[in-house]
Amino acid sequence: MHSLKQGPVAVIGGGVIGGGWAARLLLNGIDVRIHDPHPEAGRRVREMLANAERAWESLTSAPLPAKGSLSFCGSIAEAVEGSVFIEECTPENLELKQRILAEVENDAASDALIGSSTSGLLPSDLQSEMKHPERLLVTHPFNPVYLLPLVELCGGLLTSPEVLDQAAALFESLGMRPLKLKKEIDGFLADRLLEAIWRESLWLVHDDVASVEDMDDAFRFGPGLRFALMGSFLIYRIAGGEEGMRHFMAQFGPALKWPWTKLMDVPELTDTFLDKIASQSDEQAGNLSIRELEQIRDDGLVAILQGLKGVDWGAGSVFRKQEKQLFENFHQNAVHKDLDETQPLVLHRGWIRPSWIDYNGHMTESRYLQVFGDATDALLGYLGLDQEYLDSGFSVFTVESHIRHLDEGAPGSNFVVKTQLLGGDEKRLHIWHELLDQESGSLFATGEHMLLHVDTRAAKSCTMQSRLLSKSQQLRSLHQSLKRPEAAGRSIALPSGN
Amino acid sequence: MHSLKQGPVAVIGGGVIGGGWAARLLLNGIDVRIHDPHPEAGRRVREMLANAERAWESLTSAPLPAKGSLSFCGSIAEAVEGSVFIEECTPENLELKQRILAEVENDAASDALIGSSTSGLLPSDLQSEMKHPERLLVTHPFNPVYLLPLVELCGGLLTSPEVLDQAAALFESLGMRPLKLKKEIDGFLADRLLEAIWRESLWLVHDDVASVEDMDDAFRFGPGLRFALMGSFLIYRIAGGEEGMRHFMAQFGPALKWPWTKLMDVPELTDTFLDKIASQSDEQAGNLSIRELEQIRDDGLVAILQGLKGVDWGAGSVFRKQEKQLFENFHQNAVHKDLDETQPLVLHRGWIRPSWIDYNGHMTESRYLQVFGDATDALLGYLGLDQEYLDSGFSVFTVESHIRHLDEGAPGSNFVVKTQLLGGDEKRLHIWHELLDQESGSLFATGEHMLLHVDTRAAKSCTMQSRLLSKSQQLRSLHQSLKRPEAAGRSIALPSGN
Repeated sequence: MHSLKQGPVAVIGGGVIGGGWAARLLLNGIDVRIHDPHPEAGRRVREMLANAERAWESLTSAPLPAKGSLSFCGSIAEAVEGSVFIEECTPENLELKQRILAEVENDAASDALIGSSTSGLLPSDLQSEMKHPERLLVTHPFNPVYLLPLVELCGGLLTSPEVLDQAAALFESLGMRPLKLKKEIDGFLADRLLEAIWRESLWLVHDDVASVEDMDDAFRFGPGLRFALMGSFLIYRIAGGEEGMRHFMAQFGPALKWPWTKLMDVPELTDTFLDKIASQSDEQAGNLSIRELEQIRDDGLVAILQGLKGVDWGAGSVFRKQEKQLFENFHQNAVHKDLDETQPLVLHRGWIRPSWIDYNGHMTESRYLQVFGDATDALLGYLGLDQEYLDSGFSVFTVESHIRHLDEGAPGSNFVVKTQLLGGDEKRLHIWHELLDQESGSLFATGEHMLLHVDTRAAKSCTMQSRLLSKSQQLRSLHQSLKRPEAAGRSIALPSGN
Repeated sequence: MHSLKQGPVAVIGGGVIGGGWAARLLLNGIDVRIHDPHPEAGRRVREMLANAERAWESLTSAPLPAKGSLSFCGSIAEAVEGSVFIEECTPENLELKQRILAEVENDAASDALIGSSTSGLLPSDLQSEMKHPERLLVTHPFNPVYLLPLVELCGGLLTSPEVLDQAAALFESLGMRPLKLKKEIDGFLADRLLEAIWRESLWLVHDDVASVEDMDDAFRFGPGLRFALMGSFLIYRIAGGEEGMRHFMAQFGPALKWPWTKLMDVPELTDTFLDKIASQSDEQAGNLSIRELEQIRDDGLVAILQGLKGVDWGAGSVFRKQEKQLFENFHQNAVHKDLDETQPLVLHRGWIRPSWIDYNGHMTESRYLQVFGDATDALLGYLGLDQEYLDSGFSVFTVESHIRHLDEGAPGSNFVVKTQLLGGDEKRLHIWHELLDQESGSLFATGEHMLLHVDTRAAKSCTMQSRLLSKSQQLRSLHQSLKRPEAAGRSIALPSGN
């Protein structure tokens, strides 16, 4: 198989799953060719991509690669020709999927991998009629595909084991967590659990024990919070306490025989029952549109992923690894061709996040220093402070900061930071940041900072290594001819001096 | 019923659930009397309380009330006498619980509420032999009780409806989310869903389709992340997209008839099967002890709750409301009797959170300003800037900050901030913070800040309102005799001036 970097990926089907795949691929810098005959497919995929961009903008300040290009293709043939990977995301119907896979094979390269996003159909059935069945596997993602890391990988009887490994490496490069199944089974693993919850939930609503809102609340305010961290087995291990898993099983084993489930059967989906669910669901959603609900879901997932990144656990560890990779790619590939080094540099941009707003309705003061800190990191990266430099035992620390708050940025508005090198010597950098509104150019705040180059092992200051030093000196000499900001070097004092 | 503030709560049973209740109650300032004949109960409850304190310390910087006092009682009689609420947390055995409830009634006030933490027994059965059955209800919490907000409330045939309302109000005051059940049912709502997942999971491990780790990973890297936000119904509404819930049901209805579950039966808990689960569980947990797993779980839940607070959704909204209440209580009750106003004031304390540490292994620079910002808020609160003052259209903003980074605090170490009022006039406060290690007294950083009093509607500076002004002037005159910090008023400059 070719590397993803060498060619585009074809996505067949532009619904919630196909659109989600497209968004994840594009944000990872991969070109996508999508085919979906639905007249609204183009609009829907673009809206989903906008949601995904919005989520990633607030998920990370790591430098994403240049976005891949998205093209809509009028036929399967057009989409798959020359694609290195083909992701099938059509409705859950075996005959339909088999027909589409045959069409895909007509025009795809014989070594292009083919993944099916089926929620539960068996890969052995999907591949049974294929010319090159060894490159077909199930690649089952979860909605929203651009945020949730899990992808279940399941091969059929004819799938080559190397194909599973290739696919796993590929999805890891997209920031995902591939889970290879040991055995082929209907519904794979996660959907069997979801289906169990779903069938029980339908019964309880059917029997008027609870409303759809009660059922959802019974999960999201309690045990649902734990499932972002751990599955049943680890949760119950903890619940068992010091006596261990065997004790837990002995204690709660009897409950397995109690009438805690109606799953021996499923309720009939009569019109009356469907009406009940639909109307209770409308009530639960209130006036929130699907688009608004998606954004609430995405904001929540972003917050959870950021939180889990902080504790380096589960999906947060996957995300942390991806973010580290993004920074490394950026430092390796950073080219600032268009930068005019005779002017203050714009090396950091962003937007004011709703979560930065304090009880006064204004950006919390520490966020200003966070923005200036990010801008300082961007400058240091530009000057050559990369992972290798850090690993060699040297770094640059801020020893002093002076922030002036001048104006307020509105939540959601874009900002830029302009950075001027005021001075420096072989150990120090004296820098000046201006935080400006991107559109109006209003000056929100200034940051004046003194940075010190340190030997991190000896924990003391020392002369910069040659490449950092020479780049710094070069920029300093260019910036020496710039006008010095009037407020630079000021101290804090009352006007009257009292 | 008496208010919780008037009297202690009795907790009968000091296991994972009883200890968790005790911790939540104590952290909310309520005295707890616990009874458990197990010889290790005292140690276990104290360890759980330590975990809970640790979690709450990092969950919020809101001022918690003075902790309640914890006493261990040798008998049920001693624990319940004079208690306004009794929480029963004994093993899941109807006869045992009935016997304990009879003993509770012997010595409890006749109007004391009695809650049972049973996971699935029916309240009608629990209360059938009671003298005052109308005050018995199920209050089913989730582990860890001190962090998860859900409590299912379920009355039996003889439970008084007012008792359910009283209990709901009470649990809300503890930062919880009570969910009143419409109908009595075995397992209530959440445990029926958990049981469905659990039964299916046991089958898949039993049949060697997956390991316990596979099963957990299939949830926590994918759909489990969503369950911290939404339940199945809202998730599927979104998955259905623009066509709505009916369309979703039509699309996925057929799958209900597919063989996606083995829940028609449960596997026999043979020794071989129990061995398999126990050994796979050991492997999954690696070298992590139960205590370590609990802390990982708690750190993750804290991060999730903080994240959800930021987006004001689900459990995050419950927590946000509680935090707001904590601040209001604090401002209403703030008495700083022991403060010596002739010295710099210690109004803010905390500890360096692991999440504050950057890639250099040091506290991220913006966290220093966050700490100083919190200390500034504490000073302003002390001087009289409360919610009422803010609501009247006035506030105090930081217009300038000067941070000096002098030393590094270790992650986990406690800090204090000492605050000196350097000067001020009728519109301004010029303050000086010192961030110190609580134990060693090492000075980590200093913060010099200029604050401006503003009319928030007119968006310009103005004279302070009288009570804030007089308190500020009083403190300023006391602090005038203090030594002025040498570094106050300094500007940022290179030593050589280049």
